[in-house]
This record gives sequence, structure tokens and C-alpha cells, in this order.
Amino acid sequence: MNLTDTQKLPVSYDDVVAAARLIKGVAHRTPVLTSRTVDALTGAEVFFKCENLQRMGAFKFRGAFNALSHLSAVEKRRGVVAYSSGNHAQAVALAGRLLNVPVVIVMPHDAPAVKLEATRGYGAEVIVYSGDKDDREAISNGLAATRGLTMIPPFDHPHVIAGQGTAAKELIDDLGPLDYLLVPCGGGGLISGCAIAANHLSPGIRVTGVEPAAGDDVTRSFQSRILQTVHNPDTIADGARTSSAGKLTFPLILHHVHSMLTVTDTELLRAMYYLWERMKIVVEPTGALAAAALLEGKIDARGKRVGIIISGGNVDVRNLAALGAPPAAY
Amino acid sequence: MNLTDTQKLPVSYDDVVAAARLIKGVAHRTPVLTSRTVDALTGAEVFFKCENLQRMGAFKFRGAFNALSHLSAVEKRRGVVAYSSGNHAQAVALAGRLLNVPVVIVMPHDAPAVKLEATRGYGAEVIVYSGDKDDREAISNGLAATRGLTMIPPFDHPHVIAGQGTAAKELIDDLGPLDYLLVPCGGGGLISGCAIAANHLSPGIRVTGVEPAAGDDVTRSFQSRILQTVHNPDTIADGARTSSAGKLTFPLILHHVHSMLTVTDTELLRAMYYLWERMKIVVEPTGALAAAALLEGKIDARGKRVGIIISGGNVDVRNLAALGAPPAAY
Repeated sequence: MNLTDTQKLPVSYDDVVAAARLIKGVAHRTPVLTSRTVDALTGAEVFFKCENLQRMGAFKFRGAFNALSHLSAVEKRRGVVAYSSGNHAQAVALAGRLLNVPVVIVMPHDAPAVKLEATRGYGAEVIVYSGDKDDREAISNGLAATRGLTMIPPFDHPHVIAGQGTAAKELIDDLGPLDYLLVPCGGGGLISGCAIAANHLSPGIRVTGVEPAAGDDVTRSFQSRILQTVHNPDTIADGARTSSAGKLTFPLILHHVHSMLTVTDTELLRAMYYLWERMKIVVEPTGALAAAALLEGKIDARGKRVGIIISGGNVDVRNLAALGAPPAAY
Repeated sequence: MNLTDTQKLPVSYDDVVAAARLIKGVAHRTPVLTSRTVDALTGAEVFFKCENLQRMGAFKFRGAFNALSHLSAVEKRRGVVAYSSGNHAQAVALAGRLLNVPVVIVMPHDAPAVKLEATRGYGAEVIVYSGDKDDREAISNGLAATRGLTMIPPFDHPHVIAGQGTAAKELIDDLGPLDYLLVPCGGGGLISGCAIAANHLSPGIRVTGVEPAAGDDVTRSFQSRILQTVHNPDTIADGARTSSAGKLTFPLILHHVHSMLTVTDTELLRAMYYLWERMKIVVEPTGALAAAALLEGKIDARGKRVGIIISGGNVDVRNLAALGAPPAAY
């Protein structure tokens, strides 16, 4: 990595600062929770940035609100379209409602009921597609063309990436420098933005992305430095089933991220239940990726100050059994 | 109520201040969460004091640590005994470990597994009794006599009451005056302490206690001004199955509390799921009592500033079905 060569990258720390200014007072400055039990278990000083307590229940609101705020008056009037397995949908829907921008969301028919309902509840028009038959990107592009809508991609967009980075900015602004920052990774929007902020605010920090083992495309891409893909991976981390990093997020990850790790679904579920039982917060499987890597001992955190992004909490708590039997605790 | 005649009461605001000093830096100053969704639903400005995020997962740590801190050196060396359906057990066990006081806990054999395990995990000696056959108070008194242990009652104790009051003190210190404070009510330790603090810090506040409908003894006692009892009430609010208010808490409730309300188990479960799904916090049924009263519209909160004590989060999340089918949302 050449940390001096940032001028060619699509998003800079200044963009994160600008995003922080735009979302201030609209997005929650989410609380940072600590647990003596976690500290005792890991030997580290651990800080959980709770984006599950963000508006609509995930960090995605940051990027969506930032992106919609940057639209021209004409674009705002025409409206936006987004496709998403869930949280990005709710994020764009809520941001649209707050900014008076009409929103169309293209969602898979088997998205968690709680996410479908919430998206409609925020006033968006929802168009459902069947994952195997149709290409959600093609559907969205078609809608964008015929209706004059602006497409808001789930992660590969400079304003989306900059918005997500405000989570790490807040964490380090609140707590000072950290030794490690662990971040869930799907398409790479959250980790790109957070890594930009973290490297700027806490020089020397090690930023690590965590993927589900079945959807390890970014880990393989990171190692080979060539973009790898995965097709519809079988994992309970529904927010990290993206097929690959993006044209913007991949170079940002190569530049700003220090390592990538994976966790199995069993490890993920163990971490999720641990966070519910010990921290008393509702975390969705994808939201527990970074915590799982720490709690399973995949990094040597002893004596270190460790930031963990809890990315979201939108899970169907009425049907937890669908995620599989709870594994034994640590 | 004669609000000037406080000198005869067993606990004063000064006792709450003293408790706040003793628990500072040991108990968490728990976060206050807000939700625009809740505010929109109720028309109020609602502040949730999250004692489910307290150490050991409930407000009980405040009172237990305060009570054990007041023991003499000899009493500390001999140790303490407590009986509890759950959270008080963990609270005394953890306080004992922190203060190097040996702890014996007398627990019902059918207490939630998560509470039994946590109590043992904190290093306490656990003696299990069968609820129908034996009298837990008699067992505890026997242990106290034969082993020279000091009994730490779950609610009817001045230092326990004063400790619990620090929750409301923190809430109002953080947020300024409130119009309403809604508090879960079992034996009345939490509401007594909180009402003392609330009336002192926010003159004119209306403090309302909320009980499960099946265990409405304090509501009936409050109305008749004569102590009423209930026997082993059938409710999912396991923390509020106490048979009656106490010799200390009852006069404090009569003096400081403005009204009492009840909610059914279905209303309780609806509120619990709402807090999980919308606020993303794990709340046990008893912990949702005050929130249920608000969310079911049992007080007219429109335009008011309302404090809600979320009292605990120790529920067996691996077996939510045991609480009954989730009711439809609001």
C-alpha cells in the first residue's frame, strides 16, 4: 500500500468530513458501548460502535442521507431508485422521506419481512423481484431510464462511502486513537469509508474487514489484488451476500485496509447471541461479523484498544430459529 | 399525600445522593435512548433509561452494591445471603465479588437458566429451593443465623431503595425536569427510590408505577391504602411476582408515587417485542412494564416529556417461545 498516493482515490477524508456535516442532527450519533465481560474475555479494551441503534437500525442511513442530500433540485423532484437486500432499502426510503424525494426500492421477494415492512412504512414504492430469474440491477436501471430516477447504489458510490465513514469518525472523535478497527464487509462501502476516516484520525491503526466464510470474495480479492466474485453465497449474513466489491470500494480497500478475515456462520451466530445475552443489544447476523472475529480470537487483541463496528440490528426477532440453533457460548 | 412530612420516612433524597457517590465508577451510568418512532407513536418526547444495559443486566446492581458497601468490616468478612427470583441474585453476587464479600444466594429451582448460570458465574454459592414446598425467606433466615451472614433483602431495605433511586437521579440530572416518570413495580424498591429522586429533582413530576395485571397487589394497596398481597401470580413478568410491597416501600410509595397502573401479559409482550424490534435493545418482560403502559396509551402523554425506566434485560433469548407467541405490533 502506498499511503501517500491518495489523490487518485475516489473518496477522501474531506468527503467524510463533509458528510459528517450534512448528517449532523439527522443521523443519530450512536452510542459506544463497553462491556467488562468482553474486556475480560479478550484481554483488550473494546469499544462497540452501535450502528444497530442508528435510525432505521443500520449504518446505511448515513450513506443514503449523504447521497440524497447531494442531489440537485431537479434530481430530488424526479426521485431515486435503489436495489437492496434490505438495510440500504430502508435507508434510502427514510432519507427520501426526510428530504422529500420520491423513492422506488427494488427488493428480492424473500427479503426479511421486517425489512420489507419497514421500507414500505417509510413511504417508498417497493418493487419485488425473484432473485433467481431477474437481474435486480437491470430492473433498477430500467426504472431509472423510463422514469428519470437517479440510481442510488448500495455501496459503490462516493457519497455513500463518505457517509458510511462518519461512523468511524465519530468513534475515534469520541474515544481517541485505537490500535484496531474491525468492520463488517459486504460490498465494502462501510469498510472503505471507515478505513479512510480511521487512517486519518488514528495513524497506525490496523483496519480489518470481516466477511462471512461463504462470501469471502473481498478477502480473496484483497489477497490476490484482483477482483474476485461470489454467487449468492449461503450465509446467514444477508447483508454481506454481495457478489463482489465495487469499482470504487475495491481500490479504496486495497489502499486503506490492513487485513481481511472470515468467520463461519456458526461463529457468527455465537457472537450474535453473545451480544444479545451479554450486551443486551439486538444485532443482526451481518452486524455481528466484526465482533465474531474478535470474540473467536482471530486477532491478538490483548492489551490493545479495539473498535468494533456493530453494523445493524434488523433481524426478525419473531423467527430467530430460522437462523439455526444457537451455538454453545464462549 | 403530604409532601412536607418526609422526616419519618425510611429513605430520603440525601440517601440517594450518598448512594450515587458510592456506586460512581462502579455501576454504569446507563445511556438514555430516544426513538423518533416512539415519539411519533405517542406524541410525547420519550426518554428510555436503559438499566438493561447496567452491569449484570438490571438496575438491581445499584441497590446491592450500595447495601454491601455499607456493611461493617466484620459483616463483610462473614458474608451475606439473599433470596431472589433472579436479578437481585446476580446483583448481590457481583457486588460481593467486587467488594470481596462471600455471597450465598437462595434461588427457586425454576429460575431462568441464564440467571442461575450468571449468579454462579459471579462466584456466589447458590442454594436452590422448590418454590411450592419451602419458604425462601425462612431458608435464608436459617442460613443467616447459622452462618452469621447478613441478609440483603431484594427491595425492603433502606440502602437497596436508595441505590435504586440513583437510576432516576441520573436520568433527570442528564435531561432536566420531566412531566412523567413511569417505573416497573414489583416489591417497590425501584419505584420508591426513583420517586424520591424524581420528586426532589423535578417538582411536579407525576411518578407512575406499572405492575403486571396478574400481580396487581401494589396497585390495589395504593388504592385502598392498606397493604394487599398476591400469591405466586401467573405472569411472564418474573421480576414482579413478589407477594406484596414491603414495610419500607409501601409508605414510600404512598407518599411519593402519584398513580399505579397495570398491563396484561399480552400488552407486556407487545411492548417487549417493540423495544427489541424498533429500539434494538434486549429487554426482559418485567423490564418492559413501564414502556408497555406508555405504548398502550394508558397515560395521556401527548406533548409531555416522559421518562421510562427499562429495568432489565435478563431473558432467555434462546427460548423466547416460552414467553408466548409474539402479539401483533402497534
